[in-house]
Amino acid sequence: MQTSTEIKEERNIKLIIEYDGTNYHGWQRQPNAISVQQTIEQVLNKITKQRICIIGAGRTDSGVHACGQVANFKTKCSIPIEKVPNALNSILPKDIIIKDAVLAAEEFHARYAAKGKKYSYIINHTKFPSAFRRNLEYHYPQKLDIEGINNAMQIFIGSHDFKGFMSTGGEIRETIRTIFNFDLKQEEERLIFEISGNGFLYNMVRIIIGTLIDVGRRKINISDIQEALIKGDRSKAGKTAPPQGLYLEEVYY
Amino acid sequence: MQTSTEIKEERNIKLIIEYDGTNYHGWQRQPNAISVQQTIEQVLNKITKQRICIIGAGRTDSGVHACGQVANFKTKCSIPIEKVPNALNSILPKDIIIKDAVLAAEEFHARYAAKGKKYSYIINHTKFPSAFRRNLEYHYPQKLDIEGINNAMQIFIGSHDFKGFMSTGGEIRETIRTIFNFDLKQEEERLIFEISGNGFLYNMVRIIIGTLIDVGRRKINISDIQEALIKGDRSKAGKTAPPQGLYLEEVYY
Repeated sequence: MQTSTEIKEERNIKLIIEYDGTNYHGWQRQPNAISVQQTIEQVLNKITKQRICIIGAGRTDSGVHACGQVANFKTKCSIPIEKVPNALNSILPKDIIIKDAVLAAEEFHARYAAKGKKYSYIINHTKFPSAFRRNLEYHYPQKLDIEGINNAMQIFIGSHDFKGFMSTGGEIRETIRTIFNFDLKQEEERLIFEISGNGFLYNMVRIIIGTLIDVGRRKINISDIQEALIKGDRSKAGKTAPPQGLYLEEVYY
Repeated sequence: MQTSTEIKEERNIKLIIEYDGTNYHGWQRQPNAISVQQTIEQVLNKITKQRICIIGAGRTDSGVHACGQVANFKTKCSIPIEKVPNALNSILPKDIIIKDAVLAAEEFHARYAAKGKKYSYIINHTKFPSAFRRNLEYHYPQKLDIEGINNAMQIFIGSHDFKGFMSTGGEIRETIRTIFNFDLKQEEERLIFEISGNGFLYNMVRIIIGTLIDVGRRKINISDIQEALIKGDRSKAGKTAPPQGLYLEEVYY
């Protein structure tokens, strides 16, 4: 009789993960700091009794959240696929939730197979920060020119060299990216930006948001943004907006 | 010349307070545990250079939240009233926010003057708990008979003896209370209960919600509730729902 760990075929399991990034030093495993990746791997090691390495679609920074991070891992463990979410969730800390687990093709790689991603960024635009959402949005009480922001957002749509909208520290290769959609919704007194594209450079979304805040403050205008895009000049773009407003919403395959 | 602490007249200041109760042992000051009241008092002592005692409208339990807790305190400190919120918020931990401060009549007492209160209770009714709202709602994934819950809610409206819907440990005096309104909204897959009344016994809202969950599970029916109300029999009502779903929304004066 087979026990749960004796099955021979290796399965490739794809996870959809939600996490509150507040208490983690980002997604990626690293020495001397707790990451989301490592936290999930430790639980998988326990459940599968194997040493598991998971591959995440995107590396979120410290304090950045995810509603739809995707990761995959290979295992010979025979745990029924439909039981994977609850098995993990029952052991994981409450700020990481496995929302789904499915069997993926043998060659599926969460990072290389990704065709695009969608992020959101939330600004709380009220007088006082929220006691409840203090780590889940960026509190920015100053007046903003929303029409100006909306106009500036249109410039980012399409294919551009985003070298001017990248922090150093990323793996710098090709810096041309295509933005599919960029929307701004206002819910109560929150500004919710949603941006999707075929890929994003290191800190790219946060620099775009920081630039738009400066547009809203009338410190940066549309020609500055165009210059930053054409010349790749980081100094023409705005500050990097803080991490707690950013969410990895979805990964496209 | 007067300095800020030399003013002679004592002012009565009314605060509107929002807090995430997760990290506090409730509102009320107590030995060997951190309360919201004590946390605010310590900041006020620092700002006013006096020993301040604040009076809260309601004593929320450990893990219970507030959007509109009201408190008052008397001080000879001359800090301009419009600067009070920011002065406190700049020192308070981020899970407590002073949303407003106004001058109140000398005799105003946040607790005795209260004519009623409104609470809300949030149930997350989806398959998985939210990583973001893990301390801000009660995750209850099982199927619930919403129509049954709505019908049972009507029974609580009006004046009743709520002795059967009270935990021991409160100051037991008169147990008749009047419920003004009791509504249930469904937003996405959350159930948001809103209940207002002239007063609430200890744990009364949480026991009513726990009872309604049992109605939704078809373990308690309307005649059980009527019996609990008429006989004051705590054993006929449901369990006390957990604290993290409960919010003190508003205090009426």
